[in-house]
Amino acid sequence: MNSSGLPLGFKVNAVYAGIKKTKKLDLALIYSCVPAKAAGVFTANSIKAAPVIVSSQRLKKRNCAQAIIINSGNANCFTGRAGISDSKKISSSVAKELGVYRDCVLIASTGLIGRRLAADKIKKAIPELVKGLSRQKIDLASQAIMTTDKVKKRLSVKLRLGKSIVKIAAIAKGAGMIYPQLGGFSGSSHRHATMLCFIATDAAITSAALKQALNKAVDKSYNCISVDGCTSTNDTVIILANAEAKNTCIDKKSKYFSKFSSALNYVCLQLAKQIVRDAEGATKFVKIKVSGARNTSEAKEIGFSIANSLLFKTAVYGQDPNWGRIVQAIGVTRVAINPQRLKINFSSFKKKNVCVNINLNAGSQEATVYTCDLTPEYIRINTKYN
Amino acid sequence: MNSSGLPLGFKVNAVYAGIKKTKKLDLALIYSCVPAKAAGVFTANSIKAAPVIVSSQRLKKRNCAQAIIINSGNANCFTGRAGISDSKKISSSVAKELGVYRDCVLIASTGLIGRRLAADKIKKAIPELVKGLSRQKIDLASQAIMTTDKVKKRLSVKLRLGKSIVKIAAIAKGAGMIYPQLGGFSGSSHRHATMLCFIATDAAITSAALKQALNKAVDKSYNCISVDGCTSTNDTVIILANAEAKNTCIDKKSKYFSKFSSALNYVCLQLAKQIVRDAEGATKFVKIKVSGARNTSEAKEIGFSIANSLLFKTAVYGQDPNWGRIVQAIGVTRVAINPQRLKINFSSFKKKNVCVNINLNAGSQEATVYTCDLTPEYIRINTKYN
Repeated sequence: MNSSGLPLGFKVNAVYAGIKKTKKLDLALIYSCVPAKAAGVFTANSIKAAPVIVSSQRLKKRNCAQAIIINSGNANCFTGRAGISDSKKISSSVAKELGVYRDCVLIASTGLIGRRLAADKIKKAIPELVKGLSRQKIDLASQAIMTTDKVKKRLSVKLRLGKSIVKIAAIAKGAGMIYPQLGGFSGSSHRHATMLCFIATDAAITSAALKQALNKAVDKSYNCISVDGCTSTNDTVIILANAEAKNTCIDKKSKYFSKFSSALNYVCLQLAKQIVRDAEGATKFVKIKVSGARNTSEAKEIGFSIANSLLFKTAVYGQDPNWGRIVQAIGVTRVAINPQRLKINFSSFKKKNVCVNINLNAGSQEATVYTCDLTPEYIRINTKYN
Repeated sequence: MNSSGLPLGFKVNAVYAGIKKTKKLDLALIYSCVPAKAAGVFTANSIKAAPVIVSSQRLKKRNCAQAIIINSGNANCFTGRAGISDSKKISSSVAKELGVYRDCVLIASTGLIGRRLAADKIKKAIPELVKGLSRQKIDLASQAIMTTDKVKKRLSVKLRLGKSIVKIAAIAKGAGMIYPQLGGFSGSSHRHATMLCFIATDAAITSAALKQALNKAVDKSYNCISVDGCTSTNDTVIILANAEAKNTCIDKKSKYFSKFSSALNYVCLQLAKQIVRDAEGATKFVKIKVSGARNTSEAKEIGFSIANSLLFKTAVYGQDPNWGRIVQAIGVTRVAINPQRLKINFSSFKKKNVCVNINLNAGSQEATVYTCDLTPEYIRINTKYN
């Protein structure tokens, strides 16, 4: 996503507010000059960070937002009522500075769990953050949301819907504590780091269509990756759609819905893969396809059982195709397996990209999940993380 | 368990049959000179190794056995009908050599998954194995069942039941692929490496009492440990009770049942802890107690969610009490949590033994699970395992 890729009507900025110990960008703001339709999906971890609680409540109340404030360096999680109050104060400051309704400001955080957020430092940084809003700073924003990420993650696409050009641009972060199980507050059931993703589009689209497109895109992307099997308390995906492209409004039955939905899916999947490629300590990118399943949920369960197996992950790191460990991982799920029918294929473990194909020969459904190897570097990174 | 600790009527032996690549003991035999009551619990992994299938079927048919033949170096798992046939042939050879019924011989294996077992080498070794049966070789047997284990695991206890002295002696193995979920073929529901444990007792006890005592002991020991969250295809616990102590037969209502049951529980728990202390690459022994739960199953689920968290395990290794990761792990279970009521305490991460205490303040039930840290040495061991 270069600056030209930013959808119409959006501006962004990022500053150093003093949350991170070293002087690195740690506060980002995404702003739409007009109120935008908004949808979000949040972690399924039952201990939810304060910003997750605040943002999901606001989105439940109204499907509309105009800004997202994001800090890295502190997750503002397990901080009780004080944490909720901090998140609200910060978003209020942003709202005031921008001159928008408080409930139109969403918030997200990533970093250490269990410490109070330096809300005052953040509040102090907000005037400068707002003042510097620009159509040229998306690169800074993608940097400001990083924690252990080594690579900035962003992408934009442009699509023609009839006579209109619509843009979708997104930034994301995540490298460890990555096993997103995003379950929409909207009642969608079982779904699956801290991974954060913020998407801006200038499409005109109904709330219902936006939600459906987002849920589908997340299920096929973030909910298909695992770095370490640890589902964060802070996982957040938010999309803002501000209609500035002036296209004919997309609804679920519109002929352009599937085109928009596919584009959103593409953006999320590419960013999800970037997260896995940038995973803490990883030397391998592993794609696990499970086919011949009775249903996609069983296929996914088996895929993740392999993806989250320490013994499989170390075998990949060791470039040792010990497929008995794949067998072991397949057998521990609740899915009924016929070992006689099970077919396992895999590419060389010596290459950077490893493919594992499982055919259960029990049905016609499939799912693909993405993961990485487990390395001494992962351990090194995570033995000290403050 | 020294030789004097071996219960009456039992003999053991171990030899090198050529299954392991290097010349180390890899075949053990446990023999009771008279038919014994037998009970077993086996892995809940839905892909079960051939010896698990054969032994559990035999125990289902009759609650009686006279010998257990165990090999290390090959798991004989995912080897199809040929694997089943290999296990049966080996046990038939043992039966013939011992002059007992084929179905009175149980079998267990541990090692690499997915390769045919060298049944011929084993069969060739059986005459020597039987010939050398002795009351002095329990140490060799505990050595022969080892794979990545660094330490031999064995224990014996003696208990007075009225005028009789009853002995319980056991050997066990396990260091990696340890997350036993032993579910009895006897219909007992959800329970939880390859870990193997073979218990011999000279107690006179009914089948029903023996099964109940074993199930309870396993649930409070092997089903409470995890090294790496990987449940093996080969986990097996078998007990033989040959009545040679000539005590008054113990039944469920007997006044000595709870004494016998407690002793068995003690033996299994000590051996389970030995497995965790000998875990691949581990530098720490971690005890996680979850109290204030609505029921023990929820307490155990939370305990294991922490025990199996890569981020928690690396924090322990790093001696970094990053308790936010405990919070994260608590939140990913299906157990409903009230974060406001949650209390977390832990001992210094700098010591070899680490205690974590969680109080959910939601009920009066509790469970304790045991685990270890995740270290670069675990990865090193598991990058090459052939």
